[in-house]
Amino acid sequence: MDTGAPHKLVIIGSGPAGWTAAIYAARAQLQPVVYIGIPKQDPGPVLPGGQLMLTTEVENYPGFPKGITGPEMMHDFQLQAERFGTRVVQDDVVRCEFSPDPVKVPHTLHTAENGIVRAHSVIVATGAVANWIGLENEMRLARSGGGVSACAVCDGALPPFRNQPLAVVGGGDTAMEEATYLTKFGSVVYVIHRRDSLRASKIMQERFLSRPNAKVLWNKRVVDVLGDKVIEAVMLEDTVTSERSRLDVRGLFVAIGHTPATKFLAGSGLELTEKGYLALNRRDSYTNLPGVFAAGDVSDEHYRQAVTAAGMGCVAALDAERWLAAQGVD
Amino acid sequence: MDTGAPHKLVIIGSGPAGWTAAIYAARAQLQPVVYIGIPKQDPGPVLPGGQLMLTTEVENYPGFPKGITGPEMMHDFQLQAERFGTRVVQDDVVRCEFSPDPVKVPHTLHTAENGIVRAHSVIVATGAVANWIGLENEMRLARSGGGVSACAVCDGALPPFRNQPLAVVGGGDTAMEEATYLTKFGSVVYVIHRRDSLRASKIMQERFLSRPNAKVLWNKRVVDVLGDKVIEAVMLEDTVTSERSRLDVRGLFVAIGHTPATKFLAGSGLELTEKGYLALNRRDSYTNLPGVFAAGDVSDEHYRQAVTAAGMGCVAALDAERWLAAQGVD
Repeated sequence: MDTGAPHKLVIIGSGPAGWTAAIYAARAQLQPVVYIGIPKQDPGPVLPGGQLMLTTEVENYPGFPKGITGPEMMHDFQLQAERFGTRVVQDDVVRCEFSPDPVKVPHTLHTAENGIVRAHSVIVATGAVANWIGLENEMRLARSGGGVSACAVCDGALPPFRNQPLAVVGGGDTAMEEATYLTKFGSVVYVIHRRDSLRASKIMQERFLSRPNAKVLWNKRVVDVLGDKVIEAVMLEDTVTSERSRLDVRGLFVAIGHTPATKFLAGSGLELTEKGYLALNRRDSYTNLPGVFAAGDVSDEHYRQAVTAAGMGCVAALDAERWLAAQGVD
Repeated sequence: MDTGAPHKLVIIGSGPAGWTAAIYAARAQLQPVVYIGIPKQDPGPVLPGGQLMLTTEVENYPGFPKGITGPEMMHDFQLQAERFGTRVVQDDVVRCEFSPDPVKVPHTLHTAENGIVRAHSVIVATGAVANWIGLENEMRLARSGGGVSACAVCDGALPPFRNQPLAVVGGGDTAMEEATYLTKFGSVVYVIHRRDSLRASKIMQERFLSRPNAKVLWNKRVVDVLGDKVIEAVMLEDTVTSERSRLDVRGLFVAIGHTPATKFLAGSGLELTEKGYLALNRRDSYTNLPGVFAAGDVSDEHYRQAVTAAGMGCVAALDAERWLAAQGVD
């Protein structure tokens, strides 16, 4: 039971979003409290440090030209937030009662171990976790950076994948997008799908299939991942005949969706999208003209920070990349 | 005259937004070309490296718990972009002819020194520059980190400003916001305004004036900044009586607006806001409930990158800070 004064700001989540919020809030004298979650054996929606704790090498976070490991990076983010007075609590927020007038009646957060916490404002930064197939060897090689990944944009450009056979598991638009992206790097890119038709839109399917090194394996599911330090092959099972076969690959990209960590918000009144994400205004870099994108202070008179400009630069590059791919230029 | 094949992507600007766009685009095999502008003696809208080149100590960019200088940071960003194959051109884009169908007829960019350049897609990341009073000593101390700044959010929390007299020049909403923010740090915060009434909205004025250490100096303009290594005082001139007076301060925050670098876009058809910024969709962290904000992957199913999450975390903290200030909680 929390009986003290309400906090000005509670931040739920301890990935890049949570720690960056904490750095700025602490410097603004808001004495933020970050709920980092309780560590779990298996990665779950409240893994302290977020998805980067599973990432061996980060090449695309600006500021580290030689790369940095995910856990090192999150450690530095936390140190920086604490340097300015952020308080860190290792506990889970399990349920929220948001107040319509949180200045007079603060928001009430129920935690797993410390009872209730009250706050005038709350930043939800609990992230999302990639869905995995659920195989032991898949998780082992994902954790060790052995060629199993859930993010082609993050990892596809890494040297071990160049001119190698790669596989993508999934059948939706994101799977097609990731597979199309990977055709730039792999010698051949297999899409492994358990049914005889894809859920992806026709245009996304065609975009992938137009690549000379694209191939779809129908009615197959991955039943094992082979390889000691790095992936060497996947074991496939035919979903119709149950026949097993080995497929040699040097990269496996699992693209069967993400699950945002919003279960604890059920019944809180917070608006979620159909897929369970927190509903916000659209944020992208498109201008009113085709093929023209914007990023940073030139289109932002409100925030004007290095890290917001950096984030917008990333968004603009990904928007441009996807737009070019959609136009067949790549 | 450019006679080669059009580029897939040209990025105009070389601050955090431009380099981050380049890192992501280069990794996506788009062979981006960054136009960094021609260095000028005085900081101008195309200063290569952007506003951080004028920043001595950056404490709030996540990943550097001990801080980093602005020029070092931009050097690292550039190295990282070049590592993945970004091409860098030291030239200004002076005029743009955007095509309605840039895949068939590429966008045409006119440069100062190398004629025209054609590209299927363009990211505008030219930034904005703070407006300054225009005094020699003001610029000297701004460049050397001597207590003159155009960004309270960036610099207000720095140790030299704690419990010291501070001054803000300006009379608009941003000036009030920055002055209110600074009342958390300074012993007294003077708003120096050249007229006898403020342009700022009534609510922003009242928010500032409700602080016990807030003070407005009417009908005054700053005619000199005094101090060798660090600011010691400003020389004021009364705009009615022309009388001069000295005001001892340890920090001067110039808040007379920013100018986005969009002049070269005149006549290009690109939609600008009233203040000259590139018009984009609103981007903030507000949810549907008061005092509840979101950041990172939990509200982003599209980009999901460390740096976008970091950028959104910053946005959420600033939104929460401004929302709390507007509610009188701080």
